[in-house]
Formats: sequence, C-alpha cells, structure tokens
Amino acid sequence: MREIEAVWMRGGTSKCWVFRDADLRLPELSVDEVLLRAFGSPDHRQVDGVGGGTSTTSKAVILAPSERPGADVDYTFAQVGIDEAKVDWGSNCGNCSAVVAAYAVREGWVRATDGETVVRVHNTNTGQLILQLLATPGGVLDEEGSTAIPGVPFLGAPVRMGFVDPVGRTTGALLPSGSTAETIEVDGTAARVTLVDAGAPVVAVLASSVGLRGDEPPARIDADRDLLDRLDRIRREGAVRMGLAPTPAEAERAVPKLALVSADPDGEADVRLRMLSMGQVHPAAPITGSVALTFAARTPGTVVHDLLADGADAPASLRLATPAGTVATFFEVRDGAPVVGVVRTYRRLASGVVHLPQLSSPDTAA
Amino acid sequence: MREIEAVWMRGGTSKCWVFRDADLRLPELSVDEVLLRAFGSPDHRQVDGVGGGTSTTSKAVILAPSERPGADVDYTFAQVGIDEAKVDWGSNCGNCSAVVAAYAVREGWVRATDGETVVRVHNTNTGQLILQLLATPGGVLDEEGSTAIPGVPFLGAPVRMGFVDPVGRTTGALLPSGSTAETIEVDGTAARVTLVDAGAPVVAVLASSVGLRGDEPPARIDADRDLLDRLDRIRREGAVRMGLAPTPAEAERAVPKLALVSADPDGEADVRLRMLSMGQVHPAAPITGSVALTFAARTPGTVVHDLLADGADAPASLRLATPAGTVATFFEVRDGAPVVGVVRTYRRLASGVVHLPQLSSPDTAA
Repeated sequence: MREIEAVWMRGGTSKCWVFRDADLRLPELSVDEVLLRAFGSPDHRQVDGVGGGTSTTSKAVILAPSERPGADVDYTFAQVGIDEAKVDWGSNCGNCSAVVAAYAVREGWVRATDGETVVRVHNTNTGQLILQLLATPGGVLDEEGSTAIPGVPFLGAPVRMGFVDPVGRTTGALLPSGSTAETIEVDGTAARVTLVDAGAPVVAVLASSVGLRGDEPPARIDADRDLLDRLDRIRREGAVRMGLAPTPAEAERAVPKLALVSADPDGEADVRLRMLSMGQVHPAAPITGSVALTFAARTPGTVVHDLLADGADAPASLRLATPAGTVATFFEVRDGAPVVGVVRTYRRLASGVVHLPQLSSPDTAA
Repeated sequence: MREIEAVWMRGGTSKCWVFRDADLRLPELSVDEVLLRAFGSPDHRQVDGVGGGTSTTSKAVILAPSERPGADVDYTFAQVGIDEAKVDWGSNCGNCSAVVAAYAVREGWVRATDGETVVRVHNTNTGQLILQLLATPGGVLDEEGSTAIPGVPFLGAPVRMGFVDPVGRTTGALLPSGSTAETIEVDGTAARVTLVDAGAPVVAVLASSVGLRGDEPPARIDADRDLLDRLDRIRREGAVRMGLAPTPAEAERAVPKLALVSADPDGEADVRLRMLSMGQVHPAAPITGSVALTFAARTPGTVVHDLLADGADAPASLRLATPAGTVATFFEVRDGAPVVGVVRTYRRLASGVVHLPQLSSPDTAA
C-alpha cells in the first residue's frame, strides 16, 4: 500500500485534502487515477476513501513552489467526482483557496515576516493571481482561532484573500455595456440593473424593481418557478448586453451570475444580497461575485452604489448581508493594482499520509 | 494546537477514527469534549472537524491492550453526535469492530502467527467477547484487498469476526418461549414465527405467512404503512412471549428486531432476508441479527431451518440474501464454545494526527 503525504484542511466552508504536486506523480498512474482511488470514487458514499460524499468535501488542493515571476505558489484545484470516475480541473474553488498561504508558509516556501506575510498564489485553473495575507506577529504564523465566518460554527485562523486587478477579465471592461445602470424589460417588469465584470461577470438587479424586498429566504425564491424564470430571462438579456452571448437563448447557464441587491434598513450591512448561481440561490455569496459587487459599490450611478448610505463613496470594505450571515469584502491598491477580496478562515483538521491501495476496478468488487 | 495520533479506517460499511485510549486522556478535558471538538460537533456538516456529517462517518474506536483474562484488546465504541454535543457510549458498532484486530497486530499488542492470527477483543460497551481472525501468512499481516462485501464497491482485507457464546445473553435461552416455531395472529394474519435470542433477540417471520414473497425492495416495504404496522404488532407480541416486555405496548422500539425470511429459489443463498430495525428495512443485515438467524438455521423445527435445502442440517455457514447482496455467516466451536459471525473487510484510509484546537464554544463563533 503506497502512502502519500497529505494535510486535511478546512478552507472557508469546504474541506480540502492538500497535496504537494510532486507527491502525486506516481509511476504508471495518472493524477486523476490517484485522486479518484484515494477519495474512494466512484461511490456515492466514498466509503472506501477520504472523500466525504458531498461536493464540498470531495476537493483536492495541489501545491508547488512557483517558478513564475510574481508568484510564490502554484495552486491547482481539483473537484474529485463522487458517483463519476471523473476529476474536474475547469474552475477554482474560492473556499479551498484559503488554505494555500498557510500551507506554503509552513512548508518554508514563503518566509514569514514580522507582522503580516503576503503570499502570491497563482491559480493554474484560471490564471488568476490571488494575494493572500496572513498574520505573522514576530515572523511566526498565528493559527489561533480568532475569526468567525458565515457557515462555520467554530472560530478559525483568518486569511485575507485578494484578487489582483480582476476588472474586465471576461469582457474587457468593468461596465461592458457602457452604462452604470440601465433597464431590462421582461413581461412588463422593468428591472433596474447594473452590468459589471470584475472577478466574474454579474447582473446586479435592484430587488425592489422586480417586486422583491431582497431579504427573502432562499427556499422561497427557489420555490417560485415564475420568479426564477423571469430572473433568468433578465440575466440572459444582461449576458447579451455584456457581449457574452449573441442571443439570450445562447447565454451560458453559469455566466453571468445574477445578484439581487437591496438596502439594509438595519444598517448592519451596506447591501443585502441574494445571489443566484446555476438557477439557485447561493447559501452565502460566491467570492468572485462579491468582488464584482465591491467594484459596483465604488462606482457612482450603479444600482449598488445608489443603495449605500450617504458619504460611503468608494468604500474600502463592502458588507453584504447574505442568507448565511454578513460577508465583508475589502478593497485596496497594492503596487498600483486594485486588490479586492474577502476574509476567510482555515484550519488544519488532520495531517499525515493517505493510503493508496492497489488499484482495482470497482467493477471487480461489489 | 494539540495533536492526537489517529488512524482513519473503513470498517465494513462505516468510517471510523481509531485512537489509543491513552492518547485521548488530556488534562482538564473529558474524552467527550475531545471527540466532539475533533469531529467538529455540534454542526450538521461537521465542517470544522474530522466527522463526516452522517451517522456512519461520525464514529470513534478507542483501543488499549487488555489486562482482562482471555482478552487481548479492550475496544470501546463511541458514536459522536453531529448536531448534538453528545457522545453515545451505549452500544457497539459491528462495522467499526472490523478494524480492531488489524490495528492491534500493527501496534504489536498481538503477535502475528504463521497462517492465521486470533485476536480476542473485549467490547467494553456490551461486555461481549469478539474473536477476530486475520490472515497472517508467514506471520505477516496480509492487508491486500481481496474480498468484497455488500455496500463497499472496492475490495478490502478480510477479517472474520465471531461472537463468542452469544446464546441467550438477553433472555437466558436460545428459544425463550420454549417453542421452535409458533403462530402469532394479528388482524386475521397468522404469522409463523421463531423467537430466537443469540447475538440479539430476533422475531423471525416466515414471509409467505404474512403475504410477502420475501424479496421485496426495502423502499416498497418502508412505504407500506399498513404492512409496517402489522409487522410491528407481530414484533411486539413476540417481545412479550420472549419475556422482554410485560405487554405489547411496553416493548422497546429497537428490541427485538424482526426478520422476514423466505427460501431463495435461485439457490445462491440459503435464505432470503429483509430485516427491520427501528421500523425500517435494513439495507443489508445487522451482524447481531445474522448471528441469531444462524443459530435458528441450525435448530430443526424453526421457520429458518424449514427453508433450508435438504441435507443442510447444522450448516457451518449461512448465506443470507439481503437487499445489498449476500452476507455469509460462519459457525464454529472453539475451546468448547460456539463462535458465530461474519466476514467483514477493512482498510486504512489515512493515518497521522488529528489537530485539536483550543476549545471555544460554538456559541462564541457564528
């Protein structure tokens, strides 16, 4: 039985198995084969492996020191199939990203400096550079649980994660339609929207313009087929105006996302948010979508900026009231480039080795 | 952050974290507190710990060399609460039991002998002695995946687990009503049953006598309220006849279990089985219930024995066709006592340390 060194870490609201890239290069086996067998896939329970049988617990993080100028760590994310013997390398996971900097400092790939340590993470799935900032008082990594995030009932160690210069990466412009706000009419509903591209393309919709308060429980929105259909038609028209699709019917299901925004009368957050992704309300907020809304909030005339309290022009932080709780983004300029992101927490759960048995096809068992 | 040595193992169809008893004795913390925090409880996802958010993946096995005469290992099973901050020490888990012998041999607590090694496991939750037999050719533990069991799609290393002298442990007799078979009438249905106590008390019901074929899919039985109600009334009357309850209404929900038995026309198994536990059809067969049926099969006149093909008196193995596949039990005599059980498989998934953070109440986060 082969042994592969690994650390099991919580990153945000996900659980991620972290490997050194070199440790996964075994003779006569592809990385896909190694991950699938170690995780116990295919099997809906992953009972014979380290996967947890759900999408947020069947994730691998593969790391190596980077030889790329301007980056410290190369970070590859793998979504390991559960029922299917398939590894998806097509996207990054914002939550698993949160474990990278601390792992790199512990490995000695990045030297901790007194106060705060910056780790420059190159995500190979997307080509995005992510700056990660850790508290390192006296040059020592502080992993004491001190910070709460929505969806995790225990305190964790904080990491600030910023997307570097994320504006217009898909469409070429922050406001690809050329307008700060506009109206999209569907079935007699005149939706007031801002079309923004930063981190990811987002159609931000003023909740009141489509007859919503903006703080509806996700289950209520998810159960309203007519509403979902109307919102999806707004989203598809937005996709056309952003140049993402030639016609509404040809718009992708996952791009752009749609964000319902409203003012927060309690004042605890700057904006209330219900984000739709793949036709469902997100339980909190995807990190990329939060980045887009932060840019919109800093741009006078957008439907997001209009919701802010007076005097909140170009805020350095945007507090979003999501179904799971308040998520705060940050905005700062480093080396002349905007860096926008969120604080997540992480924790090491277990470390040691994962045991890899001789590969036997599941068909030969059962 | 404290580190506790641990091995994550699959035992049968469960995933179990295995600890040395001494390693869980930390100053100023109870074992319950240590397990709950390490597993990430209370939290329905156990996202900040090593628990898997389901009952079959929130289990701990605690082991120590035994000082008890006739036992090699003391084995304590803990069912770690998920939503609740509660550890249940009240019962054993047959599946997790499967990891004990191999762990003890690897630790050097038991010396492997050429051919087969016997490990005598004392389960502290129930007081039951379990004999475990491992293949150790040349005195070396063979952990190669060679054996399939229902519910696990990969091959695993086999362990034969036998309950030592399990007859009458609850009621004092193998056939506590004094009959090999009898009739229980409910709503005009005359159920032919055998009441047997070995491993656990079981009401074995001839499926045809209650209008069933005996190979119905579990979902079909679970969906038939009238049938479930009728079966439960048979079970409760059986409890009274076994001396387990003074009246049917006072019978416990979990004891006795009810087993629907029928002949297997294909001949691949000796008996077809649908076992009801806590009012639901078991996806396979609880190990304790399989032990009871094995004794019934060896006793002429019981409803189980009557189903066997001619010439199968006192079989040394009973093959049970369960919804998940065929489970084979074994029966043998060692040192004058009957030893009855099943073959399960196990595998080490990961090993190293579990990280235990400073305990902070979940109420202070979130």
